[in-house]
Amino acid sequence: MSTTTETMDQYLQANLDGYIQEAARLCAQPSISMQHEDAAKCAELVAATLAEHGLDVQTFPTPANPIVVGRASGRSPRTLLFYNHYDVQPVDPLHLWTSPPFEPTVRDGALYARGAKDDKGELVARLAAVDAVRAAHGGELPCGVTFVVEGEEEIGSPHIARFVQEHLDLLASHGAIWEEGQINSDGQPLLSLGRRGILYVQLEAQTLTRDAHSGGASTLPNAAWRLLWALASLRDPQGRILIPGFYDLARPPSARDLAIFAAQPSEEARQREELGVREFVGGLSGEALKSAVFNPTCNIAGLTAGFQGPGMKTVIPARASAKVDFRLVPDQDPEDILAKLRAHLDAQGFEDVQVTRLGAMWPERTDPDDPLVALTVETGREVYGKDSLLTPLTGGSSPVYAFARPLGIPVVSPGVGYPGSRTHSPDEHVRLDHFLLASQHMARILDRFAGLDWCP
Amino acid sequence: MSTTTETMDQYLQANLDGYIQEAARLCAQPSISMQHEDAAKCAELVAATLAEHGLDVQTFPTPANPIVVGRASGRSPRTLLFYNHYDVQPVDPLHLWTSPPFEPTVRDGALYARGAKDDKGELVARLAAVDAVRAAHGGELPCGVTFVVEGEEEIGSPHIARFVQEHLDLLASHGAIWEEGQINSDGQPLLSLGRRGILYVQLEAQTLTRDAHSGGASTLPNAAWRLLWALASLRDPQGRILIPGFYDLARPPSARDLAIFAAQPSEEARQREELGVREFVGGLSGEALKSAVFNPTCNIAGLTAGFQGPGMKTVIPARASAKVDFRLVPDQDPEDILAKLRAHLDAQGFEDVQVTRLGAMWPERTDPDDPLVALTVETGREVYGKDSLLTPLTGGSSPVYAFARPLGIPVVSPGVGYPGSRTHSPDEHVRLDHFLLASQHMARILDRFAGLDWCP
Repeated sequence: MSTTTETMDQYLQANLDGYIQEAARLCAQPSISMQHEDAAKCAELVAATLAEHGLDVQTFPTPANPIVVGRASGRSPRTLLFYNHYDVQPVDPLHLWTSPPFEPTVRDGALYARGAKDDKGELVARLAAVDAVRAAHGGELPCGVTFVVEGEEEIGSPHIARFVQEHLDLLASHGAIWEEGQINSDGQPLLSLGRRGILYVQLEAQTLTRDAHSGGASTLPNAAWRLLWALASLRDPQGRILIPGFYDLARPPSARDLAIFAAQPSEEARQREELGVREFVGGLSGEALKSAVFNPTCNIAGLTAGFQGPGMKTVIPARASAKVDFRLVPDQDPEDILAKLRAHLDAQGFEDVQVTRLGAMWPERTDPDDPLVALTVETGREVYGKDSLLTPLTGGSSPVYAFARPLGIPVVSPGVGYPGSRTHSPDEHVRLDHFLLASQHMARILDRFAGLDWCP
Repeated sequence: MSTTTETMDQYLQANLDGYIQEAARLCAQPSISMQHEDAAKCAELVAATLAEHGLDVQTFPTPANPIVVGRASGRSPRTLLFYNHYDVQPVDPLHLWTSPPFEPTVRDGALYARGAKDDKGELVARLAAVDAVRAAHGGELPCGVTFVVEGEEEIGSPHIARFVQEHLDLLASHGAIWEEGQINSDGQPLLSLGRRGILYVQLEAQTLTRDAHSGGASTLPNAAWRLLWALASLRDPQGRILIPGFYDLARPPSARDLAIFAAQPSEEARQREELGVREFVGGLSGEALKSAVFNPTCNIAGLTAGFQGPGMKTVIPARASAKVDFRLVPDQDPEDILAKLRAHLDAQGFEDVQVTRLGAMWPERTDPDDPLVALTVETGREVYGKDSLLTPLTGGSSPVYAFARPLGIPVVSPGVGYPGSRTHSPDEHVRLDHFLLASQHMARILDRFAGLDWCP
């Protein structure tokens, strides 16, 4: 181990208690996303905290909770960006918490509080890494750092994409550390290299001005049937999406991706057991199941029509609606898919079926061979003694795209979590040993980032 | 006009106020179907009322509200059966009532109260007819009468079919008067000659043990999609039902039926206007629209799956369910259709889709050329000065079958209502002039029923 690394590790070990206290101070300030007064107070506390770590802080208002940015320059013009958030999930059901969610408590080697892991613990572990790198480099940083800490991650980050677009110079950087990361139950760091995009729409059919008695069903059109035919036109039972042009921009997995999938354990048996799956979509199994995340989806997230209570009501629903989410793979574009969906419905004679766009995120990927990925894996191996488990593409969506696409940077996600973190649940916590390892991992990445051999 | 008829008419005119008071007395006793204590009190009051009109009364318990039967013999062995009910609909919203629903009030020539029309007013108008016929025949009746007054009509008559089956001797009769009737806005008596049957089922698909994140939709099966394909297999977009054997027992309208439909005014323009119909099922119009009630239906009365609130939730529903009602024409049998539905789903590979039978009624018809129909039309013309408007088959369903099928009798439905009666709504009422006309109509039918020339 180099002297620098040794110094950083010792620094973090020696100061662990202080950083846990710092995380606890942030957790003691409630900041549920929709409680805007609390969130504003937490933004102030975050700004003060970033300043205490030697960052130049600016706070940007949004229509809801402010975004806090803290920056420091380094010897190299390269900059590493950290995205985190200070808002937290609601705390219900309160009675399931062993200690109150906003009274941070250390017990059994872990800090318990809402936000201890997600995302205040992550933030402080990264600030600790900044301090450790400075301590090992005579107070300087080898590269610049930019912390972006927003307050609406838990409600879908409605303002972050625009913020990035409007502050491209401020946020210009060469790589990013995403807000959260974890190890799996074998102690392997997990490393997702991309997330799918999403187009979330509501489809609505209306066939009558009001519900009618079902005695009239021989003649009166039923909105539930109408919606059903429209939905049936979108996707076949094997999962193939029938909208013309839907797959035009969808890139299949590369040979490298398939090799990564092949090295992963199969989820098949576990999912059959835990979720009671009798048959996977399209009869998938084996290797095809592992790489199926590259198949974009059309998912009915909800259906509503007519009478839904117990017993009988004989009614022709006048209105019916469905929530539908399309998960998109690189390089599909939700706006393009929305236009194709509308065109398809029109072409099929469903001009009357309304489509309302409820949300959109773009897909993004980081090249598995990007030097930042290699650095994250290599330093992860040093700290955890394990190879990272790479995922070429994750099924879900996140605002990673909001940074990765306009800034043109690779994004990795090391962090303090583990499968028992109880994120979003009662008794959320971060283990102190995991906090230390994550900060040591992060310090190594920051220490070596400027020296990476790449072509930016 | 014969002396007998004149006597009856005068008797009813002279005693109108007393009968309205009698109806008011019944209406003053609350009897919402699910309020069993109130209903029991009302059953006692009905029993006492029937006895006051010279009937031999028996009260039969059911698992819920009792059934009251009152009988009187006549000179002829022929018997006319009257089916009515003493239970009423709930009274919400209470603030829309001009006078309280259980404080019967006569104003503007009408009796206002919950039940004034449906069905306590109907019952008393018929008892008045019995009195009038007796008055014109020296205290005797020309035929026997059997009144069946139940207390669960407003909640689907769950116990009446079995009661009839178990009391075939007691209820043996040669024709029946159904619980309600009305004139249309032109003053024509309406006369429905049949009602469709119904099979009401719940279809449920379950693909997972719990809802899953929609990021997994490339592989995890979605119950909403599963249910949708099962439903789509039942019916084509033109309304044709795809279950093998579904139409085997469905009789088309006769030439006589088609002639009756042809004489009816079209509902097409009114429904386009009032209900906002752009296109009727299967593109029906003109004469085909009038007789479409002979097309049995598969109606989605409700759909439920996954997330139904405002905004977005990205979930794969583990369960999805639909309420489906099949309206059946003579001689379809709901039990037969249920078996065919199950067999069809199994044959289509939907063994996993559960079917729960929630309710069933059988279709029934009275021959348009039955002498009781002719008598009802002829006496209606005398009283109202108008021809009756016949309907060969009504789209809805009712427990008429519970009497018509096992007793093998024709059923007609003259009554006290009109389009403004506000049945089931605030300010329900019966107009006094309509009450008088309906009792005079009823007295004529009862007076001449024994003399009908028919082959029983």
